[in-house]
Amino acid sequence: MPPGTAHAAGGEVRRVGIVGGGQLGRMLTLAAHPLGLAVTVLDPDPGCPAAQVGATQIVGRLDDPAALAALSAATDVVTWEIEHIDADALVALEAGGVLVRPSPSMLAAVQDKFAQKQLLAGAGIAVAATVAFPPLGASAAPDRAAFLVSLVGRLGDPVVVKARRGGFDGRGNHVLSGGDPDALGALTATLGDDWSALYAEASVPFVAEVAVIVARDAAGATVAYPTLRTVQEGGICHTVSVPAGLDPAIDAEAQDLGRRTVALLDGPGVFAVEMFVTPDAVVVNEIAPRVHNSGHLTIEAAATSQFEQHVRAVAGLPLGPTTLRTPAAVMVNVLGRREGPAPSEGLGAALALPDTHVHLYGKTSYPQRKIGHVTALGADAAEVAARALAAREALRT
Amino acid sequence: MPPGTAHAAGGEVRRVGIVGGGQLGRMLTLAAHPLGLAVTVLDPDPGCPAAQVGATQIVGRLDDPAALAALSAATDVVTWEIEHIDADALVALEAGGVLVRPSPSMLAAVQDKFAQKQLLAGAGIAVAATVAFPPLGASAAPDRAAFLVSLVGRLGDPVVVKARRGGFDGRGNHVLSGGDPDALGALTATLGDDWSALYAEASVPFVAEVAVIVARDAAGATVAYPTLRTVQEGGICHTVSVPAGLDPAIDAEAQDLGRRTVALLDGPGVFAVEMFVTPDAVVVNEIAPRVHNSGHLTIEAAATSQFEQHVRAVAGLPLGPTTLRTPAAVMVNVLGRREGPAPSEGLGAALALPDTHVHLYGKTSYPQRKIGHVTALGADAAEVAARALAAREALRT
Repeated sequence: MPPGTAHAAGGEVRRVGIVGGGQLGRMLTLAAHPLGLAVTVLDPDPGCPAAQVGATQIVGRLDDPAALAALSAATDVVTWEIEHIDADALVALEAGGVLVRPSPSMLAAVQDKFAQKQLLAGAGIAVAATVAFPPLGASAAPDRAAFLVSLVGRLGDPVVVKARRGGFDGRGNHVLSGGDPDALGALTATLGDDWSALYAEASVPFVAEVAVIVARDAAGATVAYPTLRTVQEGGICHTVSVPAGLDPAIDAEAQDLGRRTVALLDGPGVFAVEMFVTPDAVVVNEIAPRVHNSGHLTIEAAATSQFEQHVRAVAGLPLGPTTLRTPAAVMVNVLGRREGPAPSEGLGAALALPDTHVHLYGKTSYPQRKIGHVTALGADAAEVAARALAAREALRT
Repeated sequence: MPPGTAHAAGGEVRRVGIVGGGQLGRMLTLAAHPLGLAVTVLDPDPGCPAAQVGATQIVGRLDDPAALAALSAATDVVTWEIEHIDADALVALEAGGVLVRPSPSMLAAVQDKFAQKQLLAGAGIAVAATVAFPPLGASAAPDRAAFLVSLVGRLGDPVVVKARRGGFDGRGNHVLSGGDPDALGALTATLGDDWSALYAEASVPFVAEVAVIVARDAAGATVAYPTLRTVQEGGICHTVSVPAGLDPAIDAEAQDLGRRTVALLDGPGVFAVEMFVTPDAVVVNEIAPRVHNSGHLTIEAAATSQFEQHVRAVAGLPLGPTTLRTPAAVMVNVLGRREGPAPSEGLGAALALPDTHVHLYGKTSYPQRKIGHVTALGADAAEVAARALAAREALRT
């Protein structure tokens, strides 16, 4: 029997393959162990975070066809922890009979952020206005400058120019101000001169950022987690809080948008929908077709973590409840401050804070690198947030 | 620098060594990963449950001096998941400068259940009355039979004869009835004829069995979990429930006994104190100087699991809170029903039950072997118990 055919036949999934073995793969692996599911990850770095916690690792590039074939041959289902991968290769695996979850063609459709926005807008979901960049030749600098000026006229000032693919943690975004005399030069310096890779978005004057995480099982049933309040700093997720503290009508709108958005995305798994709350509306900002940084607090704060939920979904198992086990929870990312091995100093000081949970990813540190997170739980949201930040401060990274 | 000297110098503990790599070692390993602590286990079975989830394994007998030396050389602290090990070897390691937690001389003292009972009774802690067996020669059968008759006179009918060492899950116990015409033959058949290995206890007419789990940090501070109600079946822990549903005065007595008992046991770590509740009093039955089956529900039900607590304690880190995150939780053990690999069928049916958490240990199955557990959480204790049992029933083991 060639690899993959057992999958299509609907056999039980007991071996999960993950493209990527970073911290998300690590936390997926930790969630898979109690269920007796074996995890294999494909990751280029030997001893990646997931391999440190009992995933079998195939060392290889995420887009290496031979490595992907080996991953699918060793497992009953293939999923991913990162969306910037070769979706076409996964589509080809699926065509060859490999069970890939969620849908790789869905992944291909949303990897291009402009196409993602078009998909959402076409379904009547509120998103920022977008404009495609024209495929101008490299010699057409005056035309390009004029186009940028026109963007401000069409989308308002400032405009956010984004890389269609591959951006994360704020990288791949450029804020274009109409008053900048060298707008073209500044844009080219940050995002390059391949205009086919870019598009423009109206900037959204938000009063809050939120995320809704939705899980879907193999039969199509979905559950959503309570709305999460997210705060970015320097483009990187800084704190995530629950409850989100929104007006109930706005919260309901966010939940509705989250579910409607995920209804557009095929396949079982966990999806995160990031949104802006403006004075007038809730607007979808971005989809992550995977477990997401905003959901880390579900490990302690929810009845079922987003990681266990994703493992259950891709393994064809029923989903668990998403209810909170605590009045309030706050997660803060732990970022590297210096070059060097993973932090250890300060762990005792962080854990001395009550009901404060430290997650280190086994990654070497460099400035601004996400090397862990802390989740604090408690009754009073402000006190919980202060405690989470104090724990992060205590960890000498 | 010889192995071990860094420990005594008070260096930070980042590598934890565990004697034994079964399910307790597995759950300790899973608790250590988020804290960035590396685990090495010593276990004779290659691919033991802990090794499957990312512990480094040294394959060897638990009492092999060379293997224990290798374990201590590879780690910053040595602890155990099972108490039936060579305590003297651990005492020797400690004498050689290895950090061993909790205290190996404490372990040596409580491994002999008769000595354990003497220790407790000497401290004024209520225990069943005990009688040491006289070291009679093999030829003294009439004397032996007469001694057994005298036991019933001194301790009441029936008497429980126990192996001083090594018994667990009901093995090593023999109920001696005064009316049995062949009491000596029956006793010899189950526990052998080495009377120096035996002692006798009065049987305790209990109305409930409970356990209190206490953790102590390296500075000597202790925290106790809420009292757990345990139900044994065939000598094996069957269900564990919290809250225990005791009269508040009895619950307070159990908590007090738990703390006083653990105060007699040296060293940082988690300890379980099993007790009988009789119509008149609470009586300590047995000490487990380690994480314990009765505490498995703390993984989901408490702010800090017993496993994380033990890891924190032996690593010199502060303890976490022991408060419950749920109104009620019930754990049931999943026992093997047949010979064969670990179960997989029925996992979906078990997980279809809401807020019901399955833990499989990666062990091959045989009848009555503990191969996993299920913990259910919820608002109504009776409904939660029924759900936990239904999940166990669904798992085809």
